[in-house]
Order: sequence, then C-alpha cells, then structure tokens
Amino acid sequence: MRIGVACSPGLAIAKAYILEEPEINIDCRCIPENEKEEELRKLEHAFEQSREQLEAVYEKTLLSVGEKDAEIIQAHQMILEDPVFYDEIKDAVTHELLRAEHAISKKVEEQVAMFELIDDPYIRERAADVRDVGSRLLKNALGIEIRDISSMKENVIVIGHDITPSLMATLDRNHVKGIIAEVGGATAHTAILARNMEIPAILGASGALGLTCEGQMIAIDGSKGEVTINPNEEEIKDIEKRIEHAAVVKNELRQIKDKESKTLDGHAIELVANIGLPMDAEKAVEYGAEGVGLFRTEFLYMDRSSQPDEEEQFEAYKKVLIDMCGRPVIIRTLDVGGDKEIPYFKLEKEENPFLGYRAIRICLEDRELFKTQLRAVLRASIYGKALIMFPMISGVDEVVAAKAVLEEAKEELRTKGQDFDDQIKVGIMVEIPSAAIAADLFTGEIDFFSIGTNDLTQYALAVDRGNTKITHIYNSFHPALLRLYKNVINASKKDGKFTGMCGELAGNPLASLLLLGMGFDELSMSPGSILKVKKIITSVSMEQAQKVAEHAMGLHSAAEIEAYLKDELKGLGLDYILEL
Amino acid sequence: MRIGVACSPGLAIAKAYILEEPEINIDCRCIPENEKEEELRKLEHAFEQSREQLEAVYEKTLLSVGEKDAEIIQAHQMILEDPVFYDEIKDAVTHELLRAEHAISKKVEEQVAMFELIDDPYIRERAADVRDVGSRLLKNALGIEIRDISSMKENVIVIGHDITPSLMATLDRNHVKGIIAEVGGATAHTAILARNMEIPAILGASGALGLTCEGQMIAIDGSKGEVTINPNEEEIKDIEKRIEHAAVVKNELRQIKDKESKTLDGHAIELVANIGLPMDAEKAVEYGAEGVGLFRTEFLYMDRSSQPDEEEQFEAYKKVLIDMCGRPVIIRTLDVGGDKEIPYFKLEKEENPFLGYRAIRICLEDRELFKTQLRAVLRASIYGKALIMFPMISGVDEVVAAKAVLEEAKEELRTKGQDFDDQIKVGIMVEIPSAAIAADLFTGEIDFFSIGTNDLTQYALAVDRGNTKITHIYNSFHPALLRLYKNVINASKKDGKFTGMCGELAGNPLASLLLLGMGFDELSMSPGSILKVKKIITSVSMEQAQKVAEHAMGLHSAAEIEAYLKDELKGLGLDYILEL
Repeated sequence: MRIGVACSPGLAIAKAYILEEPEINIDCRCIPENEKEEELRKLEHAFEQSREQLEAVYEKTLLSVGEKDAEIIQAHQMILEDPVFYDEIKDAVTHELLRAEHAISKKVEEQVAMFELIDDPYIRERAADVRDVGSRLLKNALGIEIRDISSMKENVIVIGHDITPSLMATLDRNHVKGIIAEVGGATAHTAILARNMEIPAILGASGALGLTCEGQMIAIDGSKGEVTINPNEEEIKDIEKRIEHAAVVKNELRQIKDKESKTLDGHAIELVANIGLPMDAEKAVEYGAEGVGLFRTEFLYMDRSSQPDEEEQFEAYKKVLIDMCGRPVIIRTLDVGGDKEIPYFKLEKEENPFLGYRAIRICLEDRELFKTQLRAVLRASIYGKALIMFPMISGVDEVVAAKAVLEEAKEELRTKGQDFDDQIKVGIMVEIPSAAIAADLFTGEIDFFSIGTNDLTQYALAVDRGNTKITHIYNSFHPALLRLYKNVINASKKDGKFTGMCGELAGNPLASLLLLGMGFDELSMSPGSILKVKKIITSVSMEQAQKVAEHAMGLHSAAEIEAYLKDELKGLGLDYILEL
Repeated sequence: MRIGVACSPGLAIAKAYILEEPEINIDCRCIPENEKEEELRKLEHAFEQSREQLEAVYEKTLLSVGEKDAEIIQAHQMILEDPVFYDEIKDAVTHELLRAEHAISKKVEEQVAMFELIDDPYIRERAADVRDVGSRLLKNALGIEIRDISSMKENVIVIGHDITPSLMATLDRNHVKGIIAEVGGATAHTAILARNMEIPAILGASGALGLTCEGQMIAIDGSKGEVTINPNEEEIKDIEKRIEHAAVVKNELRQIKDKESKTLDGHAIELVANIGLPMDAEKAVEYGAEGVGLFRTEFLYMDRSSQPDEEEQFEAYKKVLIDMCGRPVIIRTLDVGGDKEIPYFKLEKEENPFLGYRAIRICLEDRELFKTQLRAVLRASIYGKALIMFPMISGVDEVVAAKAVLEEAKEELRTKGQDFDDQIKVGIMVEIPSAAIAADLFTGEIDFFSIGTNDLTQYALAVDRGNTKITHIYNSFHPALLRLYKNVINASKKDGKFTGMCGELAGNPLASLLLLGMGFDELSMSPGSILKVKKIITSVSMEQAQKVAEHAMGLHSAAEIEAYLKDELKGLGLDYILEL
C-alpha cells in the first residue's frame, strides 16, 4: 500500500514503534509584572538547555553520519544563536508580558508562516528547521522531555507525525530500520539524512499514525513509498530475501566505486555529479564521481536579503574546486526566475514563470549581477578545473552577449592583476527546444553542451512537471526528445565538442544503455545514482549499447521505448538495478 | 511618436477634435420615500430614451457599416432589454432608496467589476459594452446630452478618453479620418469597428488628451500607433503622398480579390481565414478567403454559466459552413486552459497555465464535453466541408484517444439515425515542439497538419509572448522554428498529407515568400491579411520562392532571416506591402 512520498530507498521489516507527540498546552494569558523575572529565567534556561542538547546532537551526527550532515544541525544551532531571534522572544516577555513558552511559540509561528508563504523547497526546509528548534525550546521551557530514539532495545520502524532532522540525526542506527512520518517530503532535511544514513524512509504519509499500532509487524519499501501492515509468512520470507539480495548488490556496487566507467570494449564515458551546495562535493567524490557536471549556484542567492558579493561566491566555488581535486567542475551561472521569490531581485509575479524572465535572461539585463558571479568563478578557477555553463539559452545571440560579459569580467581582473584561468571553457545548458534543434549553430561559440532533460522535456512537451493534472504527459523518453538528444550529439561531435546530459534522465538506469549508445561523453546525476549507472556501463560493450540506442530511436512512443529498454536490461541480467 | 496600441491601420492627417467627457455628478444620498415615484419615472424614461437611441444607432450601423458590425450594437440593446438588469436597478431605487442615476451607476460598476476580474479579452470587451450602455443610461437619467460625432463640418481626427462602440458606429465617415482613445486595445469592439470602417485608430493611448488641443493639425499612423503633432510642411507633403499611394495600393489589392492565389508559374497555395465568431465567415469570403483554416470554437464556451449544448454548437458550426458555401472549414476543438476563467469548468489556478491542463488534455478527461462538441461538428458537417482539428497534441497516443472519442460520437449519431459526413477529415494543430519534431509518427493517424506558430514559438523558445520583459526573444523567424516548419512539411509530403499554417506568421507578408517556397499547401490568416499575401504570391514564381526559402534556412539568426526576406521583397518591388 502506497502511503506517502518515497524519500529514501531500501526495504526493511520490523515492529512498529509509535513516536508519541507530547501534548503541549500553552498558557496564553498575560503574566503579572512580578512574574516577569521568573519567566525570563525560564526562557534563558530553555535556550541554555537547547544549546547543550544541540551541541550533543551535533557531536553525535558528526561521528555517526559525517561532517556534511552535521551541517544541518549546525544550521539549527545558528538559529538558536541568532541574537535577533532571542531578543524578539525576550521582548515579548518583557513588554507584552507573555509567558516564556507563549513568546517562543508566537515568534516561531511568525517566522514559519513567513517562510511558508514562499513556494520554494529550500526555504520551506528553512521553515522546518525553525519549527524543529522552536519545538525543542518549547519543550525545554515547559519541562517536557525531548523524545529520543537514540537507543532502542530491538529492531523497529519508527512512525511519527514529524520526525525532525535533529531526531533523525541521533537515532539508533543499529535498531531503527526505517522511518515513516506524516509530514515532510523528498527535499526535507530528514529525507536527506535518511538517504545518507541509508535508512528507508517514507515522508508525507498523512494518516500514517492511524494505520498501525505499537509492536505490530510492518514492512517498508522506501523506494516506492509503500508499507505492508502485518505481512504474512510468505510475504515476510519474500521481503527478507529481497533485503538480503539488496545487501549483496549494494556491496557489489560499492566494489566498482574506483573502477573506471568504461564499457567492456573500452569506451569511456564520464560519470559525474549534480550538486547544489558546496558541501555536496565531498559526497560526490565518495560515490565515485569523476567530476561535477552541474554545480547549481542558486543556493548562494536564496534565503537572504541582498545579493552575495564576489568574495562570498569566490569562497564557495573555490571550496568545491579544491574538494574535487582537479576533476572538472561545470559551474552553472544563476538560474532563477519569477517562481522563486528572492526579494532583492524584485521580480514581478508572472503568468507563466517557466516561460518567463529568468536565468540568463535576467543576467543579460543585470550585467553587474552577472559579472560579479563570473569574476568569482574566474578567480576560483585557479584552484581546480572550472568550466562555465549558461542556462536557458534559446539562441546564439545570447551566448555571444554572455561571452562579452565574461570578457569584461576577465578584463577587470586583468586590470586588478588578479589571476584566473584564461582558457576556461564555456558551454550551454540545452534545455530550450530551439537550442537543441539548432545545436549546430552554437558550436562556433562554445566548448560543450549539457542537455538539461527536465526543462527540455517540459518545453518540448508543453508540460509543467509540477502540475499533477498532466504528469502522465511528462516523459523524457518521448521519441521527439530522443531525437533532440541525438541532434545535439551529432552537431557537437561534428565540430569536436563535448556533450553531456545533466537532467534526471542521466541518472535513470533505465536510460543508461540508450544514452551510452547515443554517444554522450558525460552523464551527470545525483551522486547516489553513479554506481548504478556505472554498473550498467561496465557490463556492456559500446556496440551493444549502440544497437539498443538505434533500435529505441526507431520506436514510436515513450511507453514502447521504456518497455524495450527494460527488456534489454533484463536480457543482460541487469534489471535488478532498477529496483534499487 | 508612438502613443498607444496600433488598432486599425492607415494614415490620416487632419485637425484634432477633442471629445470632451461631460462631468457627471451622482448624488449618493438616499431619497425620501415620497420622491421614489419620481425617481422610478426618471429611470423608466432613461431606459426608454436609451432604447430609442440605440435603435437609431443600430439602423445607422446596419446601413453604413453592415450587418456583422451592427451585431455589436445589438449586443448593447440586449443588455438594455435584460429584465434582470432592469429589475436590479429598479430594486435599488425601491428598496435602497437610491436615486435613479446612483442605482444605475452602482449596478453597472458591479457588473463591470465582475467582468474585469476575468483576464480574457472577450469578457473584458463585454465589460466595455456594459459600460457603454451604462454611460448612456446615466446621461439620459441626468439629462446630459449624449456626445455625437455623426456629422462634422470638416475633416477631423477625434481624440477622446473612451470612444465607445456606439459612438464609433455612428461617426461621420466622410469627415472623421482617424480616432485616438486613451482606453481600449486591439480586441476592443471599437477597434474591430474601426478596422471594418477602414478608419485609422490608436487605442490605449493614455494621456492622449493632453498631447494636443482642439484644431491643431495632427497626423496619425494607425499601423504603428504613432502620431505627429503639428507636422511641418515637408512632413505633411510626405504623409499626403503616402496616403495617396496607400489608396492606389488598396485599390490594386481589391482588384486581385477574385484572382486565384497562384504563383506566376502556376503553383497554387490556399489562402484561408482564421475566424473566432460565426459572423466572421461572411467577412472572410468578402476578403477573398478560399476557406477557413482555423475556426476557433472558444466563443461558444465563454461568458456564460454552463456548457453550450449540442444544439447550440450545431447551429454555430452550421452557420459558418453554410456561409462558406462548400469551401473547407477547419473546426478546432475546444482550446481553453487555466488562464481563461470559465467558471463551470472549475479549472484550478495553475503555476504555468501555458504548460498546463488545457485543450485536448481537458477534452480527453471530460469525454462528454468533448463528445458533445464532436457530435455537433459531425451533424453540421453535411452543410458544407468541415474538417476537425485537435489542439495541443504532444504525442500520437493523444490523437488515437481523440479519434476513439470521435468514433463514439459517430456511433451515437448512427444509432439515432442522424446524418453526418462519415469521411470527415481529421488533423492536428502543430503547436507543441514534440509534434513538430516527430511529425512523421503522426501521418498514419491524420489527414492534415496545421502549424500554430504562436504557441509553437512560445514553447520552442520558452517565451510567454504576453510577458513584456522578454518579447525581444519571441520570434517566429528563429532558425530553429524554420526547421520545425520544414520538418512538418517534409513528413507530411512524404505521406501525401496536407500542410497548413494558422499562426500569426502565416499572415505576415514578410514571411510569404519563405512559406510559399517551403511548400505549404495552405496559409490561414486574419481576413485583412489575405489580399496582401495574395499580392506577393501572385507576383513571384515558385522557383523564386524556393530559392528564397532555401537561402533563409541557411541563415543563423532571426534578425538575419528577417533582413534577408525584407531585401528580397524590396528586390521584387513588393516591400510597400509591409507598410500597409
């Protein structure tokens, strides 16, 4: 039974452990003046206690999960250390005569409401962080014990209304075999932690608490968002067999981490990572990425009140370049639009933001914004192998204009005597149909193409992939899309350019044979997909893949193409990878 | 100087005539009970007077402009005759004790506000109609003289805040040489009337009243939205020369109305009309249309509270088929989406309606809605030559599904013993890139293609053409688009299918050589463009056009392509057509 969003893959079977949410009653009456001092002491104590707890959570996360994930907890600590946050709560006690818990709850709700107004997964996550910290403060102020799943007596699957990141980070990894929460989604910090900890997780499973009771046997399939309540003997046996098999396969995949991504007949294809934050670089390397095929730079611009300056950007790019130790890093310039609310850009609300003023279109108007980013990339370029990629390119004139700004940026650095890689390579993201159709017109201006399948599919099929009414139409295997990919490769190869793909299709194992056979030089994906794709690549010959690609391109619908590719993987005994 | 929206082409030079808006003061105080009877009499009288005036306006319009345009005035009469409209105003006097003028103004404002909430040009026009009628009622109630420009002493260009359709319909055609209004736009009834009366018009020219004063000489260029205040002698001479030339050319164009649209070497291309209302069919024939290449059926669904039934639709399609006397009429099935507010569809507000749930996507879910329309088209098909066109097709599966519904509709008619054209041809609108790229996959399922350049450009370049921040990117001459057009033609020709174009590019004289040379079988455009395009077609050989198309397809940017096509027209001495 599918009950929620598949947030962390994997199978598990264990007893249900119901995480009760303590009832919190807030006394909303004003306090008499003479109780003010006591409330302030209570508040101070709640902050103190929370600080200590979070420090412990941080230490634990650092040890048991790793530095990258511990940064999530650091973000919580920073909320707690924010003097404005503290002062406003204190003021509410002093001047509005609210009880400590009332003041905390009010401030937290205000801040959460503000974040939730903004329709952006990053900022929504920020709201969840504030809520997590707020709940801790509140419980400490009221003397309610903070729930703890850090040491369990037996194997369990934890089911709760909200499993917060701080709870997730400290759970007992030996005994917690899976988690189910009524709120949250795939981009939640809890989901990220679950994936990194390799614990199957289903979030956004509303009503999950009502499905089962403490101690009941349940099975969870984290890659499908499915649970089985009270599985029978046969089902248990089947699940256990699958869990065992998955463990074997995972181990097998781990062993090819350092293997070259070459076909049986020696054809190499670069498998690289998409990253969204500087700290993701280390993880990419850990998963065997040979570089970064897409470094999204939006994180630098979000959740703040003014543009990041050159220095701050320089540091972020430099960190990734250093962490990648000379491996290529494709840095995509700013890609935001009217759908992301970044207040200081003052972007107008648009009727169709996906067809609107965004990405390079903004950068070519706001040249200072653009040039600042380019200078930062250029300065960082001496710390590794940086490449620049422009998003949302529809015509050659935009590339020419963007390169002119790049030249200005170089000239400014030269004047200041600052060092940079003068030979830095420049490419475009192929995500607008016109760029794919007329790819040959671009080769004189660029060094590489990278096909962004998510947006390209969206535009080529006129489907907003976030629109649930029409998801059945969205499909990156559509024959027209295959032709666009092939057209870009042909144009690129003809002029000796490099062709990559960085959309979701690149990391879909079902597409691996097809994309290899089509002739891509590079596939960029989320780090977790690299080993799966590598397994397929290293198990076939280029000749086999070419035959598959050729056949697939002759089929008439996405459904036929997907069925054929599945069959081919099955024939090779590799279809189990689709289940991972 | 560009001052507003170019709404009706043509040049004129004459003295400015400022249309003063009388000041209207409404007494908003309640009336004493004993004055009620008098107010009701005043109201009754205002309605009576307005009825008489509008009847006179209708008669005048019928005689001087024609039956089709008189329907605009009929719509005003219907508002006046609407018993609910009258009763609600009367009730406001009787129960709320408002003065007649206050009651009128309140009701009108309410209705206008309701219409204006809806972002749709048709419905906005409905608001303008109500405002026009309301203003007449108000003036009659207050005894204010209704402005009149039906007999002027000398040639003038009328400048006003709002030039209402009823004012426009009755103006002195011998002396009013042009009009400028501060409000309105290209789809306003005033604009439609102006185009049909061949009077140059600029609407939406905010601040126009402040630009000039009574009696000052001004020149107007209705195709550019430009005026020249106080032109000097040289300018006057130049404008007069251009007016004279335009008259000669217009006459010349009129003479080719009945000429076949064939090239000098005998290659025929069908020039047909896009129409949006049944009454447009007559006009299409008048302008020499050889058929209707796009009959939009949305008008049937808008501005009402429930779906139109089969009978009503049948009558509308039948009228057009009869008016077109056996000429082909391509009826496009419903093409609406979340951007058009049609309350009874209950469509959700979408993030990106142009990439959303719309057109065939709605029809394939709401099969009854779709089948009702198809039955109406089928039943009408015996009155002429109807063809069915499905909009927003992204893949072959959608065509197969739509045709299955068509088969059901046919079967239902057969069961009822109702007659229809069983051989009715079926085609698709090519407006989604995937359909253009994979056109060859469709030929087994359809009889014809018609390329809708407006949407195809929008999706292929990822540009909402309504978004003013990025209009510079929207261009149907983009090399990638030319390739898409050519790809559709090639696939279509290979399997002996028919290929048309019904987007705005089809009626753009600058594109005529290119589209002819590419091999289109049919170009569908607004009736007013037909003679211009025909002039070009009949002045060249197919061989010449093919050379032009071939050369254009080798160019690298829309700007180069446009410049080249302009040069070619100039070389042929036909570039003056671009100015008309």
